[in-house]
This record gives sequence, C-alpha cells and structure tokens, in this order.
Amino acid sequence: MTQRQDDKPGSKQKPDILSADIVAQSRLFKIEQLELKFSNGELRTYERMRGSGRGAVMIIACPDAEHFYLVREYCAGTHDYQLGFPKGLIDPGEDIMTAANRELKEEIGFGARRFIALKSLALAPGYFNATMHIVLAFDLYAESLEGDEPEPLELVRWCRSHSDALLQQADFTEARSVAALLLAQQYLEANPDVFEQTA
Amino acid sequence: MTQRQDDKPGSKQKPDILSADIVAQSRLFKIEQLELKFSNGELRTYERMRGSGRGAVMIIACPDAEHFYLVREYCAGTHDYQLGFPKGLIDPGEDIMTAANRELKEEIGFGARRFIALKSLALAPGYFNATMHIVLAFDLYAESLEGDEPEPLELVRWCRSHSDALLQQADFTEARSVAALLLAQQYLEANPDVFEQTA
Repeated sequence: MTQRQDDKPGSKQKPDILSADIVAQSRLFKIEQLELKFSNGELRTYERMRGSGRGAVMIIACPDAEHFYLVREYCAGTHDYQLGFPKGLIDPGEDIMTAANRELKEEIGFGARRFIALKSLALAPGYFNATMHIVLAFDLYAESLEGDEPEPLELVRWCRSHSDALLQQADFTEARSVAALLLAQQYLEANPDVFEQTA
Repeated sequence: MTQRQDDKPGSKQKPDILSADIVAQSRLFKIEQLELKFSNGELRTYERMRGSGRGAVMIIACPDAEHFYLVREYCAGTHDYQLGFPKGLIDPGEDIMTAANRELKEEIGFGARRFIALKSLALAPGYFNATMHIVLAFDLYAESLEGDEPEPLELVRWCRSHSDALLQQADFTEARSVAALLLAQQYLEANPDVFEQTA
C-alpha cells in the first residue's frame, strides 16, 4: 500500500495482456477472457464484456429554470419500472449532441436547441468499456420521432427544488441517473443565468 | 406519452415473462434471454445478465473532517487504472457493514467503528440486477487484511474541499464513484457534527 497526499495519474505500468479470447457470446453480449501479467510478475485470469464502443448519452432536459423531465421505463435486468433521465446509444455516424436530440424526440417528444456537456461517466470499468455522456438540454421545442420502445414511456416532469425527494424515490436508483442529477444541480446552482441565454 | 406533474410509482403493469433461457455463460457471467409480452400485447425478446444477487459495497472512509480515501486500481474493462472509492462484493453470510469493514481492511489498511448508509445504487437496471450500497465510514483504526488483489492498490488521501478537482480528474469517471462523492458531500455539508460523534 502506497499512501499519497496528492495525485498524479498515469504513472502505473499496465499489465501485459498475454492472451484475449471470446469465451461466450449472445446476440447483445460478448465475454472476453484475458490472461494478464502484472508489472510485479503476478499472473491472473480476468473476464470482461466487449461492448460496441459506440458510447451513450443521458439527457437532463429543462423546459424552464424550475423543472426537468424524467421517464419511467421497463428494465429487464431488475424486472421492474425505473425512473431515470432519457438515454440511449449513439448511432453510427452521430455526434453526442445529435444523438441526444434524437433520443429526446423519441423518448419525451421534445427537441432542444442548446446542449451543455457535463461529464462522461464509465459504467463499471472493471468489467465494461462503456461511456455515457451526461448533457443538459435547453430551449426545448415539441417534436416527436418514432422510437423502438415496446410501449409509450411515461413522462414525468419533476421540480428541481424537490431533488431530495427524487433521491428518496424507490424507483430512482440507477447510479448514472443519480450522478447526472447531482452534477446537473451543481452546475445549475453555479450558473443560474444559463436559462436566460439563447441558442 | 403520458405527462404527469407529480409521481406515484408502481402503477405500471409489468410485462409477462413468457420464457427465460440461459443462452451464454462464462466463469463470471450468465446471459439470459427473455421472451416478454407487454401489457399492450407487444412481444419482444430481451437479454439480461444474471448476477449473483449478493450485492456490493462502496465506502467513503473519512480519517477526519477534511479528507477521504481513494484507491487507484487496474480495470480490465477499460485496460487502464481508475481512481475510485474502495468497493467489493458482499460475501455470503455478511451484512453490509461487515462487508464494508472487511473491504476497507483489505483495500486501504483501515477498519472503521462507525458507518452511515447513504443510498443503494443500481448498475444499469435495463441489463443487470446489481446493487451497490454506498456507505460513509468514520472512526478509522489501522488494521490490514490480506485481499485477493494481484498488486498493492495505490492509496490516495483526498481533500474534501477539492472535490471539484476530483470530478475533473481523467481517471475518476465511474458513475457509482461520482454519485458516491456527490451524495457524501451533500450529507457531510448537511451534517457537519457527524465527525464529533463517537461509535
């Protein structure tokens, strides 16, 4: 154990990947087994998921200074309905903001004229290489696109001043939505004039 | 699209699971294919990962009112080193706080006499049923346990007042660590006397 008072990343020597093999595969998932040699000579077998590498977006869409939009959607992993921010994979050829605008139109029936990128989040980097870009959206306008959802998503308009109640909500638990909420609140409190600007 | 001004969860009727089959499997991962019938009659095929159901803990350990501990660890999913809070799976028979104390001893060489649960976070509920319990730890004491890490983790002591710098750090991106940092800051700012209490 090394203890450091401050921080300079990037000094660690990565383990060597001695071999990498796909050991299981389905329509959506690809599991890779890695044989690793750490810089101290330790040998280990790891597994990781190979993703599409396309990245995803999550959008906090603000119709005004006091509200944002959430959707309630079926989640197969937990077999229940979860409340969260609109999100989706970036399509081939799209940039982040184009994908964000498309997802908004598909999921909540609005486009946005102005986006601000907050932070890019990793899922669980021990096992996945999946990045989600968190963006704020302003200057909304009504426009719908057909999505691939099996049923209409439930749209929920939430009061920014009731964010603590949202954190208490039993169906608002996804780490990326929680991080997005807190990052957005932090940004909007520090930049209250963002609502007065125009695209 | 249904628009609602306030929120009452639990009213949605879940889809029926017509069949569930394991379609791919490795040492760590199990992929299940679901045939679903939504309440509007739509039929869809989904895939999800079956987890151990054991849950995990992530710990923000505070040696004093001004600092917390981070670790820098190799992540196979991204093949790089990531900075984050100590974390790990709950072992069979352990409760959340016992697991948190064991992980602290294994990863940073401290135990803790007092824990406060902040929130339980889901990974990506569309695909996983994985819960991580975020806890604060106080009243630390030096004690080490042998972990299963291939190399010693790098321990980083971070100033609470420099949390914004941590959010800018290129290797601090895991959604659960970002959510944990912001939840901890919110709690500690609202409860400054938590450092004066004893176990």
